[in-house]
Amino acid sequence: MTSVSGNECPLCRAETATVLFRDSLLRVIEVDDADYPGFTRVIVNRHVAEMTDLSAAERQRVMDVVWLVEQAQRATLDPDKINVASLGNMVPHVHWHVIPRWRGDRHFPDAIWAAPKSPAGATASHLEGLRERLTPYRMHLLASLESA
Amino acid sequence: MTSVSGNECPLCRAETATVLFRDSLLRVIEVDDADYPGFTRVIVNRHVAEMTDLSAAERQRVMDVVWLVEQAQRATLDPDKINVASLGNMVPHVHWHVIPRWRGDRHFPDAIWAAPKSPAGATASHLEGLRERLTPYRMHLLASLESA
Repeated sequence: MTSVSGNECPLCRAETATVLFRDSLLRVIEVDDADYPGFTRVIVNRHVAEMTDLSAAERQRVMDVVWLVEQAQRATLDPDKINVASLGNMVPHVHWHVIPRWRGDRHFPDAIWAAPKSPAGATASHLEGLRERLTPYRMHLLASLESA
Repeated sequence: MTSVSGNECPLCRAETATVLFRDSLLRVIEVDDADYPGFTRVIVNRHVAEMTDLSAAERQRVMDVVWLVEQAQRATLDPDKINVASLGNMVPHVHWHVIPRWRGDRHFPDAIWAAPKSPAGATASHLEGLRERLTPYRMHLLASLESA
């Protein structure tokens, strides 16, 4: 398995992203991606490469938080699909991508890691009004995380 | 949310892939991909688009099976990383990709949905000896699924 140490790992260094929620096991951050408003990551705090490096209880807590993110996105952002992925080939420190997707977004129906179908900054109709839904999204997510 | 009905959904039609395991909730199939030996999918049997369309108990069972697949891959195939993803933009019926990855595979360190870094059929050193580990992988996985 990959042996990047904590010192070399960007997810072990001081957080520069907007942290929406943090507890002893994990944190939830906003991803700054103009094409994907609402894109959120759930990051395990300690340096483990794979989900099966965690205990069963920790795995379940991580996934419960991923599902709260998915539910908040569905409740507030009206996406056509949610994409959920833990890859970590470049940064082998467990982090989940939770990505609301819309027909007409830059990669749909491909994964966001595929070649984009439209140029950066091209205005997509699905983005209209989406940014103003981000505050309700954050509020919904925080309320559900804090009551979970 | 996406409204493809069961009749139009390829994951609702008769299975053509090799089914390793099946129960009332889900099935585990082998993905036939020459570049990715060991690539396995966990497919929910009924037609739901998102994990949060399942009950909490069903979600937990699906993820427990995903982790058994990951553990079996780590125990028998010696991958550099495991990729786990539920996307479903093209086929909005919950299915998890569990993909063992190696440095030197066709897309590493990118996601397998990105443009490949080498031509199809190019012999990669990591594939040597891998095919003969597939039988131990299947046996390990089946034993763990049947005892779970």
